[in-house]
Amino acid sequence: EIIAALETFFGPKPLAGKRAIVTGGPTHEPIDPVRYIGNRSSGKLGNAIATALADLGAEVHLVTGPTNQPDPVGVRVTHIETTREMLAAVEGALPADILICNAAVADWRPATEAGQKLKKQAGGMPPALALQENPDILATLSRHAQRPALVVGFAAETENVIEHATSKLSRKGCDWILANDVSPERGVFGGDSTTIHLITQDGHEDWPTLPKGDVGRRLASRITDHFAQRSQS
Amino acid sequence: EIIAALETFFGPKPLAGKRAIVTGGPTHEPIDPVRYIGNRSSGKLGNAIATALADLGAEVHLVTGPTNQPDPVGVRVTHIETTREMLAAVEGALPADILICNAAVADWRPATEAGQKLKKQAGGMPPALALQENPDILATLSRHAQRPALVVGFAAETENVIEHATSKLSRKGCDWILANDVSPERGVFGGDSTTIHLITQDGHEDWPTLPKGDVGRRLASRITDHFAQRSQS
Repeated sequence: EIIAALETFFGPKPLAGKRAIVTGGPTHEPIDPVRYIGNRSSGKLGNAIATALADLGAEVHLVTGPTNQPDPVGVRVTHIETTREMLAAVEGALPADILICNAAVADWRPATEAGQKLKKQAGGMPPALALQENPDILATLSRHAQRPALVVGFAAETENVIEHATSKLSRKGCDWILANDVSPERGVFGGDSTTIHLITQDGHEDWPTLPKGDVGRRLASRITDHFAQRSQS
Repeated sequence: EIIAALETFFGPKPLAGKRAIVTGGPTHEPIDPVRYIGNRSSGKLGNAIATALADLGAEVHLVTGPTNQPDPVGVRVTHIETTREMLAAVEGALPADILICNAAVADWRPATEAGQKLKKQAGGMPPALALQENPDILATLSRHAQRPALVVGFAAETENVIEHATSKLSRKGCDWILANDVSPERGVFGGDSTTIHLITQDGHEDWPTLPKGDVGRRLASRITDHFAQRSQS
């Protein structure tokens, strides 16, 4: 482990001078002071990506929802709870060359947040929870006046993974989508490995099942190649 | 710390021979394979209560929702996610002399759980989330054929704490309610201290603000006194 740390420390820094923003973890959307709508993201992959980019020399700003994970070292970290807070933090971190939207943001939030805890009424009906759409961080940043040169989104899908992710790529206007299958029988949420399909304008690459740390390093390496090709062309 | 452990180990065991069930943590109610409704319980207080009862010699079975806390030692632990799973686990742990319902269970769950991840539709309205009432673990066990001799509930309130908790005591049919004020400005959820009001048939006691470990020990000590008085009368 010490040798690995030394290799990283003295290793090549092909992303030196590049600024990267990484989002990770879930968002929590409050229903009332006690309850919220959340999702099963552990935050492990976002942290792994932030670490891998920093290891290659990028200046990394991680914007993360509530997770159990320790903050990665060598990375600036902003903690947020809601999707709206995450968007504001990402915009506040601009300009950047690279944006990786890995967080599992909530598409919807409760339309109103109750100031007091909602009470069960004897014999009363349960409340129906009206939802409203959250801002779309990936689409917003893909069309932003200060759009980063490389915008990467994630798609957590439970069916038709490649088809849904390819459609997401063009709909959002981002450059790459990393798609993974999170159907319950795969057990990816909270797990340590994941199977990624990288969708670009040119098609898709199927990566083998990898530990999340390796996914972070493979993505960072792919990003290095991308910028190397751009500077040659 | 070693001396404290030895004192506990060689200390008096006034609850020896008593069986206790403790519920702790939040419950998660799935909306779809990815999303859920949760609440802000950290699980710290449930673990502290389970540990304190075990330290006084009780045979403790902790039924807990998803938390970041390590399982307490010397205690049997069952992990569950939903309120219905928690009720089944508590009933499966009967008979018991003591039941402490500390978990922050969800009053409601989504009326239907989607088998696939709900998708945002372009231009479509967000879904309205229909809710249905969950089983009431505290009320169910307070009227159970195998009702434990001492049933203790918790009330997390954001306003009119004593009044709401006293009403809850008679409505649920339990013996004691431990009420605490969780209004956002108090910051109890996830924090290490809490201010408890113990509501009994005879009125209420206001405890000072205490670390959660001390709340567990004070409750265990109060339970010891309760059983000592019963055996004398």
